[in-house]
Amino acid sequence: MLILGVDCSSKQGSVAVVKDGRPLYQCVYDSNMTHSQNLLGLIENAVTICGINKKDIDLFAVTLGPGSFTGLRIGLALVKGMAMALNKPCVGVSSLKAMAECVDLDGVVIPCFDARRGQVYRCITEGRTVIADDDCIMAADLEPFIENCQKDIYFVGDGKDVCYNKFSKYTNVKSHSVLMPCIAYGACLLAENMPPQTHFELSPSYLRLSQAERELKEKNK
Amino acid sequence: MLILGVDCSSKQGSVAVVKDGRPLYQCVYDSNMTHSQNLLGLIENAVTICGINKKDIDLFAVTLGPGSFTGLRIGLALVKGMAMALNKPCVGVSSLKAMAECVDLDGVVIPCFDARRGQVYRCITEGRTVIADDDCIMAADLEPFIENCQKDIYFVGDGKDVCYNKFSKYTNVKSHSVLMPCIAYGACLLAENMPPQTHFELSPSYLRLSQAERELKEKNK
Repeated sequence: MLILGVDCSSKQGSVAVVKDGRPLYQCVYDSNMTHSQNLLGLIENAVTICGINKKDIDLFAVTLGPGSFTGLRIGLALVKGMAMALNKPCVGVSSLKAMAECVDLDGVVIPCFDARRGQVYRCITEGRTVIADDDCIMAADLEPFIENCQKDIYFVGDGKDVCYNKFSKYTNVKSHSVLMPCIAYGACLLAENMPPQTHFELSPSYLRLSQAERELKEKNK
Repeated sequence: MLILGVDCSSKQGSVAVVKDGRPLYQCVYDSNMTHSQNLLGLIENAVTICGINKKDIDLFAVTLGPGSFTGLRIGLALVKGMAMALNKPCVGVSSLKAMAECVDLDGVVIPCFDARRGQVYRCITEGRTVIADDDCIMAADLEPFIENCQKDIYFVGDGKDVCYNKFSKYTNVKSHSVLMPCIAYGACLLAENMPPQTHFELSPSYLRLSQAERELKEKNK
């Protein structure tokens, strides 16, 4: 099965091609350009380099969130467009769990995005076991878990600095060198084992209200 | 410092851009297309996505070997061409040590390429400590080291299957999920701390004779 994966749930974006579980192409960037400017070129690039035709792609994988609202909309719209145009199924996955698939660290992995205002989007995993599901929480609220965890803990993703700064005093909090996980690759691996969906069924998983919605709610109180 | 790195020392090829130690772009492929068909497009892509101009690149990093003779020649020629055209320095690094930079595994890491005929190109590292330098050896000759090593051992690179098949009976030999290390990224990290060279100074490090040279030597005996 040939899967093309796309992620733009954070400032870093990525594209991957996986054939029968084996990676053929992985590209990650962290640039000031917007995802909409980068992704199409990268996908063309991936298809050319892998020597495949777009219509050979069996499945599209995309991250639904949590993460950057604008990024998620771009990734989803792009994958929906490709899936519709080529009449192929697609699968939406958690951006945090896709990130966990990319790292090879022995212990508890906490994939997290910086959600600003002291908050992080995070889940807690150990291998493929989910200890706590995706949520948007105050970073400080991770403390009881860290205090009681008997295992090594690693933070991954663009929220890792927030967490390492806060919890570095705990000896079970370990640093590592994975700066650019190819989340699109993790999305392909997860998608391979999930029931395929149609492009109608995909919708973003924001996990919290947007700033505009928060302000409107506040105003209407 | 802005560094562009290129690796095509094995069937997998990669391009990376690193700014002041921070990755901006990492792309790895494993395709049936030749490196010469892939690399220029990837480099154009990297430059566009990072929003940089080729003349902003301060240093070019390239892997000198060991690895595929043809791949090394392509990577070296390409980097020499760019460095000469833009009048910028370049640095050549070991492909095996660059690979070791890419993985984050706690123990002894043996980066290795399949050198065919039962042989592997390998070095042995622990963090940035080199336990054994780059060499081309019979895979079977790794056994005494593995037998006596008290630490976890991980094989990385396209020679890992050869080694895992041979040494899986040892309990200190551990598997991991890093299938596509971005060697070009590791090359950038190493290059940053090495004295810059001119394009005249770079030459490949094959570590063994080519098949044609072996056959000629045999014939002339």
